[in-house]
Amino acid sequence: MVLGRIRTDLALETKEKFEEERAEVRGVAVKEEYNEEKDIRTTTVTIETENGAKTMGRPQGVYITLEAPNLSVPDEGYHREISKELAKHMRSLLPPKKNLSILVVGLGNREITPDALGPDVVSNLHITRHIIREYGAEGAGEEAVHSISGLVPGVMAQTGMETLEIVQGVAEETKPDVIVAIDALAARSIKRLNRTIQITDTGISPGSGVGNHRNGLNQETLGKKVIGIGVPTVVDGATIVRDSMAHLLDTLEEEEKKEFLEEMIAPSLHNMFMTPKDVDDTIKRLSFTISEGLNMAFSKAEE
Amino acid sequence: MVLGRIRTDLALETKEKFEEERAEVRGVAVKEEYNEEKDIRTTTVTIETENGAKTMGRPQGVYITLEAPNLSVPDEGYHREISKELAKHMRSLLPPKKNLSILVVGLGNREITPDALGPDVVSNLHITRHIIREYGAEGAGEEAVHSISGLVPGVMAQTGMETLEIVQGVAEETKPDVIVAIDALAARSIKRLNRTIQITDTGISPGSGVGNHRNGLNQETLGKKVIGIGVPTVVDGATIVRDSMAHLLDTLEEEEKKEFLEEMIAPSLHNMFMTPKDVDDTIKRLSFTISEGLNMAFSKAEE
Amino acid sequence: MVLGRIRTDLALETKEKFEEERAEVRGVAVKEEYNEEKDIRTTTVTIETENGAKTMGRPQGVYITLEAPNLSVPDEGYHREISKELAKHMRSLLPPKKNLSILVVGLGNREITPDALGPDVVSNLHITRHIIREYGAEGAGEEAVHSISGLVPGVMAQTGMETLEIVQGVAEETKPDVIVAIDALAARSIKRLNRTIQITDTGISPGSGVGNHRNGLNQETLGKKVIGIGVPTVVDGATIVRDSMAHLLDTLEEEEKKEFLEEMIAPSLHNMFMTPKDVDDTIKRLSFTISEGLNMAFSKAEE
Amino acid sequence: MVLGRIRTDLALETKEKFEEERAEVRGVAVKEEYNEEKDIRTTTVTIETENGAKTMGRPQGVYITLEAPNLSVPDEGYHREISKELAKHMRSLLPPKKNLSILVVGLGNREITPDALGPDVVSNLHITRHIIREYGAEGAGEEAVHSISGLVPGVMAQTGMETLEIVQGVAEETKPDVIVAIDALAARSIKRLNRTIQITDTGISPGSGVGNHRNGLNQETLGKKVIGIGVPTVVDGATIVRDSMAHLLDTLEEEEKKEFLEEMIAPSLHNMFMTPKDVDDTIKRLSFTISEGLNMAFSKAEE
Repeated sequence: MVLGRIRTDLALETKEKFEEERAEVRGVAVKEEYNEEKDIRTTTVTIETENGAKTMGRPQGVYITLEAPNLSVPDEGYHREISKELAKHMRSLLPPKKNLSILVVGLGNREITPDALGPDVVSNLHITRHIIREYGAEGAGEEAVHSISGLVPGVMAQTGMETLEIVQGVAEETKPDVIVAIDALAARSIKRLNRTIQITDTGISPGSGVGNHRNGLNQETLGKKVIGIGVPTVVDGATIVRDSMAHLLDTLEEEEKKEFLEEMIAPSLHNMFMTPKDVDDTIKRLSFTISEGLNMAFSKAEE
Repeated sequence: MVLGRIRTDLALETKEKFEEERAEVRGVAVKEEYNEEKDIRTTTVTIETENGAKTMGRPQGVYITLEAPNLSVPDEGYHREISKELAKHMRSLLPPKKNLSILVVGLGNREITPDALGPDVVSNLHITRHIIREYGAEGAGEEAVHSISGLVPGVMAQTGMETLEIVQGVAEETKPDVIVAIDALAARSIKRLNRTIQITDTGISPGSGVGNHRNGLNQETLGKKVIGIGVPTVVDGATIVRDSMAHLLDTLEEEEKKEFLEEMIAPSLHNMFMTPKDVDDTIKRLSFTISEGLNMAFSKAEE
Repeated sequence: MVLGRIRTDLALETKEKFEEERAEVRGVAVKEEYNEEKDIRTTTVTIETENGAKTMGRPQGVYITLEAPNLSVPDEGYHREISKELAKHMRSLLPPKKNLSILVVGLGNREITPDALGPDVVSNLHITRHIIREYGAEGAGEEAVHSISGLVPGVMAQTGMETLEIVQGVAEETKPDVIVAIDALAARSIKRLNRTIQITDTGISPGSGVGNHRNGLNQETLGKKVIGIGVPTVVDGATIVRDSMAHLLDTLEEEEKKEFLEEMIAPSLHNMFMTPKDVDDTIKRLSFTISEGLNMAFSKAEE
Repeated sequence: MVLGRIRTDLALETKEKFEEERAEVRGVAVKEEYNEEKDIRTTTVTIETENGAKTMGRPQGVYITLEAPNLSVPDEGYHREISKELAKHMRSLLPPKKNLSILVVGLGNREITPDALGPDVVSNLHITRHIIREYGAEGAGEEAVHSISGLVPGVMAQTGMETLEIVQGVAEETKPDVIVAIDALAARSIKRLNRTIQITDTGISPGSGVGNHRNGLNQETLGKKVIGIGVPTVVDGATIVRDSMAHLLDTLEEEEKKEFLEEMIAPSLHNMFMTPKDVDDTIKRLSFTISEGLNMAFSKAEE
């Protein structure tokens, strides 16, 4: 199947690709909701069987996608409605008990603007673990429900270590109940950029993210439930060229097409990413919206 | 002529385009040198006549381009040889007298990694103007030759002002003899990225730079000699797609081609840029190399 | 009088000093208000005569001081009440007309945490001047009332230029109606740190600020109304030692005391500042509170 | 003994205190060297016995202190001589074999200028572990001798976790042979600030550092040799006041003195630090000098 070669970190895009091709996908349930007032579209893709996982090229689990065109637009209220929506879904994925210990991991490279999303989210979180350990739950304020810790592991070029190694070590030592990992993603289509949030209980897939994680962060590798939150902030260089040429190539046979593309797309394109010119403001707003959503989800406030 | 529509900030690329087309360019002198040991290629394009300026689509003046493949590669000595080469050319463009007052302007947006080149260069400069004004030339150390001030004006989205307005105002007030403006550029070709430095006595052209300057910074607008230093750090989103498709389109007529491209290239692409994944390290190295070159050019050290 | 030598940037502290000494201050009117619910104390010191100015050691004008103990404490709403209070006073100092052109200057050094207040405030402002110039007032949204530009001039060690030179030049070129200058101040007393905001229509005094401005920014030097907003974020090294010893020295004669202190306080102390260990969080919150206050004052929102 | 209450992170200062008091310190060997040409004074304090450790209030081991007045002064060569000296001592403390795996930990808070030393050092290091693991030792260049990884754990207020927990976890997972921890320290005396580097094989003491580490990083807690590198960049607020008053108090009895001081020093002073006004430039230079020293020590270059 040709799909595997076209990189996307969004389950939604994989699903759409199938729909375009009128392909049937067994073992995959899709539910769509649209809130007209807030202009937020929520699509829940549930991969229910091993077969569905194989077809979709991603692990079994729930993939919730919020699409909010306004997310990439400046906004006085810093997108409070979207934060609330995100908080609601986070709560639905967290185990239904109080006093969870949650480790939030901000993946990505804080020195590269579109990849700084994860680190920026962690820097806006209300960190409470050390206060609760010292003074008990009351010490962290009446609002606090869970014990929150935060980690910004950096990327391999900065640390010499796999992200997974660092998170494994820290999780081993601090024993959180749940891990939440936030990452900037690569999308296949420009129109998704900076207006889509994907929340999944399958963690972070290997090969995803702007900087490409070689190993996944998930239940299997970390021994804990891992909730992944991703926002596409870049498009892969090769992808954009490939897609732009797609129509042009419609007349060619599949095999010819493949050869042609491989010849054509300069290898250097694979080491490039494309991002909007206002990426600095966008990342600032997005990270604030997400951290506010998490702060709500982790507390009694704004329920 | 189709050239005007294809955006490049490098005189070298314009020249090459003509060569490809075997076009003759009157009023333009070209000199090439190659230093094999250091692997630095220097091309000096001098636009000598009004006619040459018209054909090249840029003002009369000297455009020196250093091409150093190693510039984008990590290096212990932080590219000392390239700094020296840059210093040599800077000195050749500065008026031949001591005690110049030089205002160095770091253009671009420090919040966007590939556009932070100019601000980063200024932050590594030896600023001496205030010391010389307070304690005389001896106060700034024996090495100092010129009086150096630095300005990071920011971009219009941050300031609400044209860069030119800010630089005009500051130059009016502080009366430098020469202005040096450093900017991250958009290149037409990926292979130039982060390995080319353009030095010109024509300043910064309108419409150039990652963030697009609406007004040029030059002798005419500022009433002073303006030396522009530019490094291509991004490729324009639309350009890359256009170029990738060029071969494919070779069979089409010029007019058809134009129409086809205009239809095809999503308008959103024009608001995107493409840059390499290691842009953080690259910008750090480049800005250091350039600021060291300027520090040398402005002092007696390392002559 | 010994007062002049004890450095404080707060008119309030000067006034208190007089009160302690039961000194009479003619030509100075003081009005105090306390909002119990919000726990905000507002003191308005108006220096009405040349004589009052001489006694107080600061120019004639209005000095509004907001004291809010909670300002230095983490807060979900980012101190919305204080932002509103600040907005109210800003509006009272602005000329009573619409469509003002306002240049907001963020003074201080963004590389030093407690001095980054001014630059941080500017980076959170809604900048509208360029939008209004391009698309008219409607382009900037219905909320916009004034045309806002922002400038972060940097400090002399980074630029080689006096802050005043840069602001003069930019104001000359862009012709704002009013200038608002935000600065981190040095307080005399630890208890004021990070919980006091001073708003004055006399601009920024020479010698004030963490980095010491050699020239004032005011009506006289800039030819425009200058509203100064200051928050004490550091205590001067020498001041703190001096104050700590004050009681101990109460038995000495004034002249002896002066000599003793001068001998005793290491000169190096004058090049040091003292600041709280959580200065990073504090500055983040403070700058957000102030920029929100300004955003309110400059728009129809939240009136 | 009163010493324990006066906080210093420098073994050298403790030693001096004893010398002042003409106290004898058994089990402690001191060696001094002065390189006149480079103006670097090297003091090696070796605590040889349990008794010596008790008297000095720090663990048995080697404490090398480099004092270089020029370290706090701008310098073209970024203090190359001091980097070399540091490299020499680092090599003397590393186990005498090739191909060590070394984890360098940059302690401190990168958001607070004088505490950013550790994080800044790590960001300038040549990280090689991931390259060596992928391509073998040759992949990392001929210069590489050891496999280097880097970690910036952040501070407890940002992570909710003890630094020790994070380092333990990561060390457990990645199994380095040696850990090098870099930290900004609090000095007792202003004259040491930013001109002293302490290198010790006893790691980082509990209670040391600008932000105070509650648990030490050492052989005992981490199961590996830990080399600590510390530079005093701040003076504790309470310390400076206490010291300034010392002479004044010489006439009082010890007990009176203690009471007096406790009454006098505002508790808030204990949450403050004092640092020089040019701390931004100083930290930039210092971190570069140290990272260059480490890069030398970890490679064949510049031996």
